Amino acid sequence: MAFSFRLLATDGVARCGEFVTPHGPVRTPAFMPVGTQATVKGLAPETVRATGADILLGNTYHLMLRPGAERIAELGGLHRFMRWPHAILTDSGGFQVMSLAGLRRIEERCVIFRSHLDGATVELSPERAVEIQSLLGADIAMQLDECVRLPAPRIDLERAMQLSLRWAERSRRAFESGAKNGRALFGIVQGGDDPPLRLASARGLIDLGFEGYALGGLAVGESPEVMRAMIDVTAPALPADRPRYLMGVGTPEDILEAVARGIDMFDCVMPTRNGRHGVAFTRFGAVNLKNARHADDPRPLDEENKFPAARDYSRAYLHHLVKSNESLGAVLLSAINLAYYQQLTAAIRAAIAERRFAEFRAEIAEQWAKGDLPLR
Amino acid sequence: MAFSFRLLATDGVARCGEFVTPHGPVRTPAFMPVGTQATVKGLAPETVRATGADILLGNTYHLMLRPGAERIAELGGLHRFMRWPHAILTDSGGFQVMSLAGLRRIEERCVIFRSHLDGATVELSPERAVEIQSLLGADIAMQLDECVRLPAPRIDLERAMQLSLRWAERSRRAFESGAKNGRALFGIVQGGDDPPLRLASARGLIDLGFEGYALGGLAVGESPEVMRAMIDVTAPALPADRPRYLMGVGTPEDILEAVARGIDMFDCVMPTRNGRHGVAFTRFGAVNLKNARHADDPRPLDEENKFPAARDYSRAYLHHLVKSNESLGAVLLSAINLAYYQQLTAAIRAAIAERRFAEFRAEIAEQWAKGDLPLR
Repeated sequence: MAFSFRLLATDGVARCGEFVTPHGPVRTPAFMPVGTQATVKGLAPETVRATGADILLGNTYHLMLRPGAERIAELGGLHRFMRWPHAILTDSGGFQVMSLAGLRRIEERCVIFRSHLDGATVELSPERAVEIQSLLGADIAMQLDECVRLPAPRIDLERAMQLSLRWAERSRRAFESGAKNGRALFGIVQGGDDPPLRLASARGLIDLGFEGYALGGLAVGESPEVMRAMIDVTAPALPADRPRYLMGVGTPEDILEAVARGIDMFDCVMPTRNGRHGVAFTRFGAVNLKNARHADDPRPLDEENKFPAARDYSRAYLHHLVKSNESLGAVLLSAINLAYYQQLTAAIRAAIAERRFAEFRAEIAEQWAKGDLPLR
Repeated sequence: MAFSFRLLATDGVARCGEFVTPHGPVRTPAFMPVGTQATVKGLAPETVRATGADILLGNTYHLMLRPGAERIAELGGLHRFMRWPHAILTDSGGFQVMSLAGLRRIEERCVIFRSHLDGATVELSPERAVEIQSLLGADIAMQLDECVRLPAPRIDLERAMQLSLRWAERSRRAFESGAKNGRALFGIVQGGDDPPLRLASARGLIDLGFEGYALGGLAVGESPEVMRAMIDVTAPALPADRPRYLMGVGTPEDILEAVARGIDMFDCVMPTRNGRHGVAFTRFGAVNLKNARHADDPRPLDEENKFPAARDYSRAYLHHLVKSNESLGAVLLSAINLAYYQQLTAAIRAAIAERRFAEFRAEIAEQWAKGDLPLR
């Protein structure tokens, strides 16, 4: 069974669809919770599923260092290890090598870095990144790429894009030589904030042929306008019959804007990280539960929310947990935020299917602009 | 409806029974998870219930300081605040004043201390302790007492015991003057490691009349032998028709030993605190998941355990979570440990009902002595 993506509806440039993986279908636009170290922080897998997620993201960089890809394979793969029987996408490790590892050196053959855990010298080549993701059992693997923080000189962007393209070719070859079993490999468009580089990258990847295409090197320091412009340049150059994944994005607003530009997939630590820091996402926008205005408020975050924790716990209680540094606060708010992201993508899918995405965008922007409930 | 306790069976000195509270029945011997700051750390209340708990313990000292007793009352009481619709016992704050507060001074009228949160000077009298617990809506309130760390000179033990007895009388009076609504107030036997003081304390409390009697001032530095000797002295002096609560205890072995000496109720942070530190309790005894022996072990902690987390996650995964400081490790191990404590008390109740408690004690001691599963 080959990986397949089908579009179910389009509305302008916005798309809704579905792809099928060996671990079940994924509805798009899709938001993937981040399960960095084989866990979405603080949440049991049943809770993550209950938020509505079809797929989550695992981090190759973290898992290769601890507990190790061969060990996870020996234990039956990442799905079994973390008890998540649904789809998993793993990144290639390139982004974390840039952001976490010490003393890294990029060579043609591979990237060499020091582990942030124990300082050990580790090599990661495109072939090894594919192998690791295969050992993990990822339904969707990502090619190894070089991601450059913005702003950066064009010469650096071009060099990284060309290297990423050569690594894409090696990744594709390594992937093709293994047993695919319905798994997919996505290529990653690089090129920073330079439209011609982005287009050259996209064309090069399309020539190689991937099951899906990601936009990498965004949400790395550029303005929202630049990010949107890069999507506007790149998305139309990608094949319509393959999913398009905007890596590491973003706020609820970013997601709406990117869907409006033809993006199908997202991942971001924002819902869980903000949850750990006392911030909830609801249809009222971002609500800071540290704020003393909540201390005596018996109302839930959103009484109309179908996710139990958003509806059943009082703001006063959530405020108390956050102020008291109680881990249940992080647990509940992480789940509430993931549920909101899933509610948002589900509503986006419905709006596209009914060809009212523009109205939906306007309605939701108006709702967010109103802000949180007034004080009682 | 008055608080009532009935014995269902006895086997030697060991008892099993049940008491009824305004928030449901509690089977004894009972273990109460500790919900210090209106939360059992990291666990949603449904999870705590799923471990088998009928009742949990809340801490007056913490809750009076944050978020405040009047605030919780305004929000509908502690049950509603923390979404635990079952029975709650609150301590009186005396123990935490001793162990956590700064610069405390004990006077006849009250204890005066500095809050560990903001350094504010706070007074806690026996009457205020009863009032706070009433505002919280505790099904079982505890009298304010003075708890002395062991070892201590007899003169200090006697002074604290006599003060606790006078405070018991004032607590009783305050409790009687309020609306009881089926709620209970327990007296606390003090007297350190001195048998005559323990007996004098018990007699004084019985003269006042309480719905239940606690043994306080134990598990505060004395040996297990001294603790057991004090139970041996005190329990027979207490009325058979009232529950007996050994405060702050203990290990699974402590619980078995205390039940064998006529104790009905327990609370302890051990299952949750040890869970946060990577130690699991199972029928194999305490298992340290930090140990590298678990890193490649696909077996669950205990494949015969009915609690899902103890049966479904591999030791390798739990080891990984603990080594990676992932909060899900603390969450899962806390729940697994609470479930084990509940399984233990349930098995104790069944053994007493079938009058085979002595055999049960021997069997379980043998099982614990075998230790954890051998390496594969």
